[in-house]
Amino acid sequence: LGAIVYSMYTDDTIKTEAPTIAEKDSILKRENGISEQSPMRLRMEQFIKQHQKQIVAELEKVDGQRFIVDTWERPEGGGGISCVLQDGNVFEKAGVNISVVYGRLPRPAIMKMRANHKALDPDVESLEFFASGLSMVLHPKNPLAPTVHLNYRYFETADEQGNTNAWWYGGGCDLTPSYLFDEDAIHFHKTIKAACDKHDKAYYPRFKKWCDQYFNNTHRGETRGVGGIFFDDLDHTEKDQEQLFSFVQDCLSAFLPSYIPIINRRKDMPFTEEQKQWQQLRRGRYVEFNLVHDRGTAFGLQTPGARVESILMSLPLTARWQYMHAPEKGSREERLLEVLKNPREWV
Amino acid sequence: LGAIVYSMYTDDTIKTEAPTIAEKDSILKRENGISEQSPMRLRMEQFIKQHQKQIVAELEKVDGQRFIVDTWERPEGGGGISCVLQDGNVFEKAGVNISVVYGRLPRPAIMKMRANHKALDPDVESLEFFASGLSMVLHPKNPLAPTVHLNYRYFETADEQGNTNAWWYGGGCDLTPSYLFDEDAIHFHKTIKAACDKHDKAYYPRFKKWCDQYFNNTHRGETRGVGGIFFDDLDHTEKDQEQLFSFVQDCLSAFLPSYIPIINRRKDMPFTEEQKQWQQLRRGRYVEFNLVHDRGTAFGLQTPGARVESILMSLPLTARWQYMHAPEKGSREERLLEVLKNPREWV
Repeated sequence: LGAIVYSMYTDDTIKTEAPTIAEKDSILKRENGISEQSPMRLRMEQFIKQHQKQIVAELEKVDGQRFIVDTWERPEGGGGISCVLQDGNVFEKAGVNISVVYGRLPRPAIMKMRANHKALDPDVESLEFFASGLSMVLHPKNPLAPTVHLNYRYFETADEQGNTNAWWYGGGCDLTPSYLFDEDAIHFHKTIKAACDKHDKAYYPRFKKWCDQYFNNTHRGETRGVGGIFFDDLDHTEKDQEQLFSFVQDCLSAFLPSYIPIINRRKDMPFTEEQKQWQQLRRGRYVEFNLVHDRGTAFGLQTPGARVESILMSLPLTARWQYMHAPEKGSREERLLEVLKNPREWV
Repeated sequence: LGAIVYSMYTDDTIKTEAPTIAEKDSILKRENGISEQSPMRLRMEQFIKQHQKQIVAELEKVDGQRFIVDTWERPEGGGGISCVLQDGNVFEKAGVNISVVYGRLPRPAIMKMRANHKALDPDVESLEFFASGLSMVLHPKNPLAPTVHLNYRYFETADEQGNTNAWWYGGGCDLTPSYLFDEDAIHFHKTIKAACDKHDKAYYPRFKKWCDQYFNNTHRGETRGVGGIFFDDLDHTEKDQEQLFSFVQDCLSAFLPSYIPIINRRKDMPFTEEQKQWQQLRRGRYVEFNLVHDRGTAFGLQTPGARVESILMSLPLTARWQYMHAPEKGSREERLLEVLKNPREWV
């Protein structure tokens, strides 16, 4: 999740004399506000803040209950807003978080990132960086309504003069049903594909595949859910910054139309106690992916001083592990497993 | 967990011409039975099988329900017995597993193990090995009754002539209450300490500390529970094989007297819905440790073809994650957290 991935790279013990980009941005924002001429850092921050508000407002309409809003600041610059709805009418647990982080990358982190970003200077002890993103996980109560996850993020490093050096975007969204309704998976993928196609016809197939590969409980040979898109390290070698920002904006804007129709048609469907139990087992698989395989979670939890409650907000309220559970032959539960073992093309 | 740690090292693609130790042991067992003159492999196998039966029988008396017994074999030699009781009267989930594994260690695993075992030949492509152990996790239903975990294992490698090369013991046991009764923690630690003291007065303090360090949710700054003992890599540089085997036998034999009195006095105590919820949150922490930090689980899940259901049998039937949960000031829940943040000396 966003908040976390970033915090891993922060080493607060490294200090420099020059004004930081955090300080510069703070002055810029106060004196000029934010416009299309502002640095991407401020534009991304403004964009995710607006979308967090909009998403939270729409989800409150669906649920009928209000989110709790936690605002936190980082002494070195930046901070975050965690919006959480727990044990609501529709959502068992829903979290919509943004984080904006200014800090310094220590050398080992730089060397790791250089694999994908050659612009990073290999000859410095540390580099100033900026990271911001919106992260969301929604776990509905109704076992017929799917869980959804989304994360879009922007990362940037600065040289010693405070000028942008390397930058990139990452993110994606994916759907995790306990009971598969083909029409839901098709609608979700179609909406995302339309957002991708506006920018590059190759994006959807490429990022859909990446998603199936990433959100994979390899130890069980099952994807986490029916996928969506996933991408990382999109930088100047891919497209120019304006084009990629516009792509990420369209992806994030596609979220509400991709999910709201699904949750609205599933949230009040009658279900059985057996279906609820199956959902709980699938929640267990979700926990397995996030704690065993998800890189952001792993790195976050290794970071001293990380905000653990924001990192683990992605976990469901309740989960279950049952020894040797196997669905009945020909059941809907078995069909879901077949699709998770052999990811399908939905569009 | 035993079953798992071992399977990681197995590379079934490597074949040799000479008779394997699995084949030799099979003949030895058939022709001579098992006595004090038998190889340690066979004596350890016999010992953990006997104890599995005894422990399962005693736990069935406590619960009133029977364990399900799953027996599995490995084509290369060895196999395991998984005894599981799920949704019983006293236990939400109880697993008592043994595994006996013969296989070949690939070079990367040898190089890793050489850090602690210099006898391992660094100049071979692979080495034959044997591993056996008993693993157990009991999650009671009553939130006032503690979860307990135990694992004792023996590992051995053979040279090309099938003679024992390196060997070592590992294991331990630890108690994880949701509600802390000092008398339970004291009884548990006292019983283990007595078993340790028979062999070496330095063992209990040394292995108690190791346990607090190992079973630690470092991302939360909390130990998993109130500890017990943990040790690994005990070989000829520690004591001779007979002495260590005798030590491990006494440790395992101490389990029933260390835990049965505790479960018997807690299993029927009245409890509230709030206490059950707190137990569910603590179950979540248990899942976090096992999936994020436990080395055996991590390696097991990375092993192609590992028996995932045996590895994850350690997870509770149900668990819960609640955003920003904090116990009330001065409550029993808060006192538990204080003890987990600052491990105590119980004896």
